[in-house]
Amino acid sequence: MEKTIILGVDPGINTTGYAVLGKKGSQLQLLEGGVIRGKSKETLPLRIYEIYRNLKEIIETWSPQAMALEEVYSHYERPKTAILMGHVRGVICLSAAEKAIPVYSYSATTVKKTITGSGRASKQQMQRAIQLEFRLERLPEPPDLADALAIAICHGYHCRGLGPFPGEKF
Amino acid sequence: MEKTIILGVDPGINTTGYAVLGKKGSQLQLLEGGVIRGKSKETLPLRIYEIYRNLKEIIETWSPQAMALEEVYSHYERPKTAILMGHVRGVICLSAAEKAIPVYSYSATTVKKTITGSGRASKQQMQRAIQLEFRLERLPEPPDLADALAIAICHGYHCRGLGPFPGEKF
Repeated sequence: MEKTIILGVDPGINTTGYAVLGKKGSQLQLLEGGVIRGKSKETLPLRIYEIYRNLKEIIETWSPQAMALEEVYSHYERPKTAILMGHVRGVICLSAAEKAIPVYSYSATTVKKTITGSGRASKQQMQRAIQLEFRLERLPEPPDLADALAIAICHGYHCRGLGPFPGEKF
Repeated sequence: MEKTIILGVDPGINTTGYAVLGKKGSQLQLLEGGVIRGKSKETLPLRIYEIYRNLKEIIETWSPQAMALEEVYSHYERPKTAILMGHVRGVICLSAAEKAIPVYSYSATTVKKTITGSGRASKQQMQRAIQLEFRLERLPEPPDLADALAIAICHGYHCRGLGPFPGEKF
């Protein structure tokens, strides 16, 4: 049985989380996870470039067949933060498109429901579910890594041979 | 006297305008201008990739010393549109950062005031001022091209040997 590699990414201007999972049948395996930290004193273009460079390396290392991201929200409490997050999400999408990797998007509610059974799960319930999934010794930290793991697991549960998902529309 | 090349860009998910100006002393010269159109049926990552590829070509052709963009707004009527624009603006910033081209941002009010003398100038007043600047036979169209020309001219007027601007902060 072929192993499918899934890359989950949680975009952020300060910290971008990523998680690389292997999927074989219904089994999910944690291959790598971490965060890319921006240099807070740099200009926006240089911070974005740094995230892009790091993500490109991860993609070259693992050659994932799918990238999973949270959907573009339509509501934000802080519009400026959302637009900056959009900048980061843009270069993340680009890094996938350049390698012809399809991007799959899930709403926050779908991610929560898939992993815990409840669309209103707390951060801690999510962390606990991820811990159980991979039998980790501790809760996954920091939050950006946990979010990247969650979106990757969500795609792992939803995809069936990566068939029925049409890729990201908006 | 050295000629400075300025690339002005107006990001948009459907149409991204760009304008290449040459600046020699206080003289501005229009070298190239146009729009990059996204294929509306494509997924978001592929549309962004298309914009990025086109812009990279323009940068390789002209080797600009500066890129000028409108500031990231803090208020938007349609948050989702703003976030999508953020995706495009992200890859535009990236294309500059990759070539170590500094990115300069100006508020919409500054652009209008610089070009027409009024921070509340209408679209038409802006087009007319651009037409006069370059002695064009017609008003510049479409709007995305006019906006790209406006931001490039604004930088051309403000920069003095590209000295005093610190590049984009947020």
